[in-house]
Amino acid sequence: MGLRILGIDPGSRITGFGVVEVSGGKARYITSGCLRVGGEGSLPLRLKAIFEGISEVVTEFSPQEMAIEQVFVRHNIDSALKLGQARGAAICAATYLGLEVFEYTPTRIKQAVVGRGHASKDQVQFMMKTLLQLSATPQEDAADALACALCHFNSRDTLGLIRKAMS
Amino acid sequence: MGLRILGIDPGSRITGFGVVEVSGGKARYITSGCLRVGGEGSLPLRLKAIFEGISEVVTEFSPQEMAIEQVFVRHNIDSALKLGQARGAAICAATYLGLEVFEYTPTRIKQAVVGRGHASKDQVQFMMKTLLQLSATPQEDAADALACALCHFNSRDTLGLIRKAMS
Repeated sequence: MGLRILGIDPGSRITGFGVVEVSGGKARYITSGCLRVGGEGSLPLRLKAIFEGISEVVTEFSPQEMAIEQVFVRHNIDSALKLGQARGAAICAATYLGLEVFEYTPTRIKQAVVGRGHASKDQVQFMMKTLLQLSATPQEDAADALACALCHFNSRDTLGLIRKAMS
Repeated sequence: MGLRILGIDPGSRITGFGVVEVSGGKARYITSGCLRVGGEGSLPLRLKAIFEGISEVVTEFSPQEMAIEQVFVRHNIDSALKLGQARGAAICAATYLGLEVFEYTPTRIKQAVVGRGHASKDQVQFMMKTLLQLSATPQEDAADALACALCHFNSRDTLGLIRKAMS
């Protein structure tokens, strides 16, 4: 089995996840989906649901590394706080289970999978379907999570090549 | 052993904690302190340190309920995001270990322990030293955490009395 990367697109209501497996310089789709926690009641219960949901994905699909979007909120402080809490829950689940966590800006993720930093949601969905040879278009948060995993795959690869060239 | 309440004052660099034990309508000091994670390197490692630090406190002192400040950030979106992540990590540790989590606004906490909603940090520290009969003044984040635990103790008590009166 090659290296498995878990990509995460955190959100206070919907958290997307996607797992790809890397071997022989290629990435293969393993799974993807989203955790919908909007209806779980109080904030502590919603964070618990994210923590447990990510833990289940890690336990079932055994990724060794996690890539997560570095989020930027421009206007709403309340949204930033909510998103921060959801992101904290997802990162804790991964680090608790021993995964190394890597962060990528949205621009870098889009650059990696669409070829330019400002791409629409459907472009990312379309590219995930194409690059990973999926039979159906993934839901948008799941697509963002897969894109994040692929961005990490690219960065790892580049890092590896640089290290090789320098050794 | 009476009911033990863990109070938390979350922060991206320093997270205060305090445990009180409630029995016979009185609260007794058990422990308090703060987790300093500013120097732990990357964000995932800092969140991991908060998660693990709170987990250790829960394992060692066995509180059954957690009270945490409901935070408000007024100006800085970046601070809101960072604080949210730290808060998410602390809440996840508690819910993962089976504690029920209660949230209180800073105004309500100060009202409960100082008697008015706008009290300074040293007033809270002074009141914690006095109410809990401590030999030394607790550090400010630890004092805020203890205040949060005492606020929950008061609210539980009031709830209990209301339930009794209605039954």
